[in-house]
Amino acid sequence: MRILFAKVLLALFLFANAVHAADPLPSWHDGKAKQSIITFVTQVTTPGGTDFVPAPERVAVFDNDGTLWSEQPMYFQLAFALDRVKALAPEHPEWKTRQPFKAVLEGDLKTVLAGGEHALLELVMATHAGNTTEEFAQVVKDWLATAKHPRTGRHYMDMVYQPMLELLEYLRGNGFKTYIVSGGGIEFMRPWTEAVYGIPPEQVIGSSIQTRFELRHGEPVLVRLPEINFIDDKAGKPVGINQHIGRRPIAAFGNSDGDLQMLQWTCLGNRKGFCLYVHHTDAEREWAYDRTSHIGKLDKALDEAQTKGWTVVDMKNDWKRIFAFE
Amino acid sequence: MRILFAKVLLALFLFANAVHAADPLPSWHDGKAKQSIITFVTQVTTPGGTDFVPAPERVAVFDNDGTLWSEQPMYFQLAFALDRVKALAPEHPEWKTRQPFKAVLEGDLKTVLAGGEHALLELVMATHAGNTTEEFAQVVKDWLATAKHPRTGRHYMDMVYQPMLELLEYLRGNGFKTYIVSGGGIEFMRPWTEAVYGIPPEQVIGSSIQTRFELRHGEPVLVRLPEINFIDDKAGKPVGINQHIGRRPIAAFGNSDGDLQMLQWTCLGNRKGFCLYVHHTDAEREWAYDRTSHIGKLDKALDEAQTKGWTVVDMKNDWKRIFAFE
Repeated sequence: MRILFAKVLLALFLFANAVHAADPLPSWHDGKAKQSIITFVTQVTTPGGTDFVPAPERVAVFDNDGTLWSEQPMYFQLAFALDRVKALAPEHPEWKTRQPFKAVLEGDLKTVLAGGEHALLELVMATHAGNTTEEFAQVVKDWLATAKHPRTGRHYMDMVYQPMLELLEYLRGNGFKTYIVSGGGIEFMRPWTEAVYGIPPEQVIGSSIQTRFELRHGEPVLVRLPEINFIDDKAGKPVGINQHIGRRPIAAFGNSDGDLQMLQWTCLGNRKGFCLYVHHTDAEREWAYDRTSHIGKLDKALDEAQTKGWTVVDMKNDWKRIFAFE
Repeated sequence: MRILFAKVLLALFLFANAVHAADPLPSWHDGKAKQSIITFVTQVTTPGGTDFVPAPERVAVFDNDGTLWSEQPMYFQLAFALDRVKALAPEHPEWKTRQPFKAVLEGDLKTVLAGGEHALLELVMATHAGNTTEEFAQVVKDWLATAKHPRTGRHYMDMVYQPMLELLEYLRGNGFKTYIVSGGGIEFMRPWTEAVYGIPPEQVIGSSIQTRFELRHGEPVLVRLPEINFIDDKAGKPVGINQHIGRRPIAAFGNSDGDLQMLQWTCLGNRKGFCLYVHHTDAEREWAYDRTSHIGKLDKALDEAQTKGWTVVDMKNDWKRIFAFE
């Protein structure tokens, strides 16, 4: 009797373990969002099914800021640029009296942002150009190793969404190739996306400045120039996807109006596609914002997601955990 | 005794087969070029060796025109553009009197070429822009299915180099990711490179015109615009490689001065890289040209290849076969 009881317990234990192992998205609450993902992946990977998609065409594209990691209280790349102004200030005494650099050095973010796009562009050019691609990658790595998020006190790389990491893994396990398609700088992301997301540099698409090939004492380098090359946002996202991948994705994930055209390119027209919006609804564990936010505004796209029947993730109710460190 | 003899014969047969199966480059004559390739691949794939390179970093880049397929008597894409002018002429009555279109329609290639880069650019824009990316891909496929090379009478896709196909396969079998990096149009190559070279669209880098995202009656399209986006030639090749791949290649293959910077980016500086030039030396089976050719000029780069000790393939003496149809 005692042995039978032990056997039953063991069987229950093994069963529970098997159920747990079978759940590819353990940080997602069971619900419509999670189910819609699993249903889609099952459909496109079932051989002989009407919606079957061969593995090489299983392209999934992810926005980064606000979709894979946080973007509040400011884009993390902007925090990088501000820190970079401070680090470079000794070489630029003129910044003490010149905007927007003066405001940055005085910690007056309000004045910086009041300068609008022009001020931000000037900051980006002053902090992102002038060195080689290899030097810049090192600067990014050094910053990420030390800088801390102002609210959580965590390294920025710790502020990635655990449920999305599981989703990336789940898709790759089902033959998908996962890409980042972000308005952020392509060279700002590539030094760390492989370690953090499992996405190698050749699968990162982003905004870029121009570069020039040079031989310096026989050493080839690419010099980063203070001129915009490509803005990978809004209608630029389908353009960037076509330029880099040359295939239309079958799954797209975003969180703001800036991702709308990418999701349209994936899901509209006579084709099977999966589109998902991450809706920031959790003021306690992360942030809550949408239609009126200056960062990651989700307004027109939220309406379109509802009209088109795309999946909308309610972060507060769909995600058990947001960050791995919770 | 008879049985022993049969056994010896069988053993010899099996041995011969094994030797054949073990040769990854059967269309290459044994010699310095072939040996240099095999030595390099062995070095970077031997675990624990001083030159070992992890698989994700085994990036190999190939020029296309003159390196993977022929480029004489004119770039195949130019033949496409000329045929396209003829196909579109009924919609453009004004071309009958306007250069360079008039010359094309009259089969007067000399006048076309006399127009220089400006005339060629006008031809490309008139024949490559104005439709959607999906429409253009279909036009390319239709042309390749019917057009024949003026000298061999073969389909253009049959004029790929058999030894290079074996090389691509050999590299991939050793964990390399193979890329095309061509001055030719990215959208002209993508519709067929996977079937012909085993290189998927996302691993094709080329020159491009601009595109614009549009919703046409709810259908998303990318419209091809008559404006240059990127010229993937000379110093543009390292720039394109960095933009698309974000890693420096460890092997590069070219045939003209236009590939020099790509090979420098791969092989110069403090790193282990493999660089190879295909030298067109076989007037009988293919073409013989180098320092003074208008197409695929190989002059400065031939000197640099010799100075730097890069591999130079002598097509006549290094390749047993050039085309599969021989």
